[in-house]
Amino acid sequence: MNWITKPCPKRDTQYKEYAVERQSQLTKPPGSLGELENIAIRLADLQQTQTPSASEVSIAVFAADHGIAQEGVSAFPQEVTAQMVMNFLTGGAAISVLAKQLNAHLEIIDVGILTPLPEQPGLIIERAGAGTENCLEKPAMTSEQLDAALQSGYQVIERALKRKAKIFIGGEMGIANTTSASALYCALLGLTPEEATGAGTGLDEAGIKHKTQIVEKMIKTHRKWGGDTQALLQHIGGFEIAALTGAYIHAAQNGLAIIVDGFISSVAALCAVKINPAVNDYLFFSHLSAEHGHRKVLESLQQKPLLDLNMRLGEGSGAAVAASLLISACALHNQMATFAEAAVATKI
Amino acid sequence: MNWITKPCPKRDTQYKEYAVERQSQLTKPPGSLGELENIAIRLADLQQTQTPSASEVSIAVFAADHGIAQEGVSAFPQEVTAQMVMNFLTGGAAISVLAKQLNAHLEIIDVGILTPLPEQPGLIIERAGAGTENCLEKPAMTSEQLDAALQSGYQVIERALKRKAKIFIGGEMGIANTTSASALYCALLGLTPEEATGAGTGLDEAGIKHKTQIVEKMIKTHRKWGGDTQALLQHIGGFEIAALTGAYIHAAQNGLAIIVDGFISSVAALCAVKINPAVNDYLFFSHLSAEHGHRKVLESLQQKPLLDLNMRLGEGSGAAVAASLLISACALHNQMATFAEAAVATKI
Repeated sequence: MNWITKPCPKRDTQYKEYAVERQSQLTKPPGSLGELENIAIRLADLQQTQTPSASEVSIAVFAADHGIAQEGVSAFPQEVTAQMVMNFLTGGAAISVLAKQLNAHLEIIDVGILTPLPEQPGLIIERAGAGTENCLEKPAMTSEQLDAALQSGYQVIERALKRKAKIFIGGEMGIANTTSASALYCALLGLTPEEATGAGTGLDEAGIKHKTQIVEKMIKTHRKWGGDTQALLQHIGGFEIAALTGAYIHAAQNGLAIIVDGFISSVAALCAVKINPAVNDYLFFSHLSAEHGHRKVLESLQQKPLLDLNMRLGEGSGAAVAASLLISACALHNQMATFAEAAVATKI
Repeated sequence: MNWITKPCPKRDTQYKEYAVERQSQLTKPPGSLGELENIAIRLADLQQTQTPSASEVSIAVFAADHGIAQEGVSAFPQEVTAQMVMNFLTGGAAISVLAKQLNAHLEIIDVGILTPLPEQPGLIIERAGAGTENCLEKPAMTSEQLDAALQSGYQVIERALKRKAKIFIGGEMGIANTTSASALYCALLGLTPEEATGAGTGLDEAGIKHKTQIVEKMIKTHRKWGGDTQALLQHIGGFEIAALTGAYIHAAQNGLAIIVDGFISSVAALCAVKINPAVNDYLFFSHLSAEHGHRKVLESLQQKPLLDLNMRLGEGSGAAVAASLLISACALHNQMATFAEAAVATKI
């Protein structure tokens, strides 16, 4: 699995310089498009082009189950993972609606839900297992399963590149996966279980307290086993988080810009950056999740979210909503007239 | 001019109730779409429908000149107002690009630029005058001119309603109009000139200090003359701010939802609410402007901005960027499956 540490492309600075210069010449007060200017400049640099684009979006939602669900950490029953996969496929889920609105390519990957679904159009079956183990008892997955999950992310990007995607969005579905994400954050960032644990899909106060205790046990168990970021992913899971990690790394290795969704996706992004630091350059963080602890995560990566709409759904939904900002930023950058073209006077 | 105080429609609560209930049944944890849920519920209520829509957007940009520009309060020369109108018409301005991206109807109204432009496609000529007076010397406009400017806003909405617009966006162009807006805010909200005055299109520190002194003089001059919100608009201007005020009022009177842009547009929204308080229900505030003082304005209307992207361009550009959030919110509300439809289990 040595592909994950392969370098990201070296970038020629001329494209960023051109983009900065162009923004200063467009018919607007300098800087007045705020973050939209920064988005266009970043995309021009990442895509190594004078005309950045966000119009071809590829969305992949990885679904998997979590053994830790046995500890009663979610407000929803575990069968919802597979039921929501069916809902993705039939077009009724939030990400289905948003993908259609963006005219984006959407694929759903079963990377390890508990009970396999029948083969059907739109469903990609790359199962690393039948859900992870309960990681209080044994590692969530074997190292072979971790490799398979990372590889599933690699394959998603290979397909996106064939479609000439300009933007990659990863999503996830897995009952109990905010619990895994919280434990991963604690181990990666040195947060306390209280700082990193929230309501997930809608726990009450007692539920959050219980979940916090489980997160604490998960970290202690992992510490006993020890190891690096890959070991952590193997010990705590889940398959969908590892697959997202692999996808983010391989996207960055191919110069493909990424919009990161919320709390769960961000932990995969953090794992990707820990394994391969240059990945951070390729990440646009779509929104500040309502899930407790997300703010600290973004701060640790020195990244600012584009939106703050109190969303906490997952599936890639926040990233899909934010995609329209990148599309607007590119349209403005590429299509606005310069002061010279429009014969508009510049500053006094 | 008694149309401006005519009531906004009474709304049947059944549509709001239906929207709230529907949001609770869609396949997502309750509340997990955050502000997008609130947007859909508000729009269903305002549009009095079970299927809210933001897909037909009408944008009107009002352009006018300001006598106060003679006091050297802007970083750009006054001829830029007319030059930017030409840029709107030829498609090179930010709002032109964004309108095209939204497939929105865009019209540009000369409500009083200094020197008239030749008649041409896309330009609506409804001039209340050749720029306003320098309001340190005399009222910015006569009461007849104020009526004409408000009426220009009324007519914009009449045309939008004929096109069956679902969303109205107003924009403005007028060199020196952040100065007028700052003075209006001080008078309307009791802010100090320091609290309400910012860099506009890009003043340096000395420029802001000078502008703040001019704003202080403008308020003192208005206080000497006295009067209500309409008198204030007449004394301080400008034509484009009055036209936006009229447009917002008439949109609300016809149940048409409004996305408000930034600093200048918000002062027109505030004037509209002062004249006709029910207008506030119809306002979605697109973004928190980077222009100093905007935050206090939004607080005074008890409204939260959808975006915070450090934008400060005007033209309706922030509102046009935010329109995609309303479009997403409606798509999710109307197209997502319910738990029952998708056979997904609900909370434990």
